Amino acid sequence: MLENIRIVLVNTSHPGNVGGVARAMKNMGLSDLCLVAPNDFPSEAAVVRASGATDLLDNARIVPELTDAVADCHLVIGASARGRHIPWPVIDPREMAAIVSEVQPQLRVAIVFGREDRGLTNEELHCCHQHVHIPSVEGFSSLNLAAAVQVIAYELRMMALSGAAVEKPRWGTPWDIDLADSGEIERMFQHLESTLVDIEFLNPDNPRQLMPRLRRLLLRAVPDKVEVNVLRGILTAVNKKVGGG
Amino acid sequence: MLENIRIVLVNTSHPGNVGGVARAMKNMGLSDLCLVAPNDFPSEAAVVRASGATDLLDNARIVPELTDAVADCHLVIGASARGRHIPWPVIDPREMAAIVSEVQPQLRVAIVFGREDRGLTNEELHCCHQHVHIPSVEGFSSLNLAAAVQVIAYELRMMALSGAAVEKPRWGTPWDIDLADSGEIERMFQHLESTLVDIEFLNPDNPRQLMPRLRRLLLRAVPDKVEVNVLRGILTAVNKKVGGG
Repeated sequence: MLENIRIVLVNTSHPGNVGGVARAMKNMGLSDLCLVAPNDFPSEAAVVRASGATDLLDNARIVPELTDAVADCHLVIGASARGRHIPWPVIDPREMAAIVSEVQPQLRVAIVFGREDRGLTNEELHCCHQHVHIPSVEGFSSLNLAAAVQVIAYELRMMALSGAAVEKPRWGTPWDIDLADSGEIERMFQHLESTLVDIEFLNPDNPRQLMPRLRRLLLRAVPDKVEVNVLRGILTAVNKKVGGG
Repeated sequence: MLENIRIVLVNTSHPGNVGGVARAMKNMGLSDLCLVAPNDFPSEAAVVRASGATDLLDNARIVPELTDAVADCHLVIGASARGRHIPWPVIDPREMAAIVSEVQPQLRVAIVFGREDRGLTNEELHCCHQHVHIPSVEGFSSLNLAAAVQVIAYELRMMALSGAAVEKPRWGTPWDIDLADSGEIERMFQHLESTLVDIEFLNPDNPRQLMPRLRRLLLRAVPDKVEVNVLRGILTAVNKKVGGG
């Protein structure tokens, strides 16, 4: 789905922002960048901020008008501040990603971002099927251009990955060790309890809620086999010190 | 919920990025910024990129160590690339927002971002309950610092606006005891480490992965104050036995 999405920047003033957009796009798996009449581009400032995404800058298409940028697109979404003169369908970035995910793979989507200071004109916004608004704070609502593209690209990537949600390992990298089974856990708790008696921390005649509290703590963490062995190793080291004391 | 969230930046190199972070935070309704040993700050470059969010820069707290920045926090989440030496619980930004939304309003959350070039050290990551990873493209995975904060702040704002937070507090009540804060947790780990050296289970000249494994185990469980006191009581009982042995 991400290959069919084009990011269009209209009349960008600061080339550094174009570089920041290229980096944000490449981080999120987007590659199709189109610039409508950019100011001061190509530029070293763009290359610096791109931080390695120079392939996107090199391949960026430069056109004179927004209509040129979106001519071959089937769904055009414009980034917009709130409160335009004529009400228009406004969606948030997550709703936008859901709509884009339903577009057929042979069709092309454009997401259009306006000038740093003034955004898109009403005329440009009226070229768009939908307007997407990032829900910023009223009174301080204008995001940096690259930051706005980052949020939109992030939502698109989250949507693209959700199709393959099965893949994602819950623990970042696959957990390195098998979980301990209940038998191992129970033997660990028995060892803990007898050691606590040995060091006179647990009074068997008045145990209070000590073991339940320790069980609750450690069971919440769902220990793996190595963790259980480490804990038992510590208990054995204590046993030796106390026995030999 | 957003008032209780602190953004912590560790050893930022480029002050412009601090300004970009301040802008991203203010756009999304966050205001608590803490800088750990920043390079070249305060700075005009930060003010320029902040684009009006100078109140956040003026109010930013500057501290020498990460532990100072998170001492009064109850849930600490570190931004991380994938694939660390020891696997640690890793969540995506949306899962992170869901977890943060369940934190009780009187508790404080820190979200920690590392250096532009190298992120957080393993030692810093091992101070965190959870690691959050923005699902970027493998091979081009490093986001600009302000862009990363923008994505995280956006997810937090989307969650705050959804109003879903009210229903089911997983943290605190109906839990019987307040959660331990990071300062209490760190002192507990220091006590644990010195005790493990005393009982000759931990060799300071060859510590291997012992403390990271124990940190990972206990931080997963998110201990409350009584649990931390129980663990420290056990350590003190061991200290007495070993000292008197």
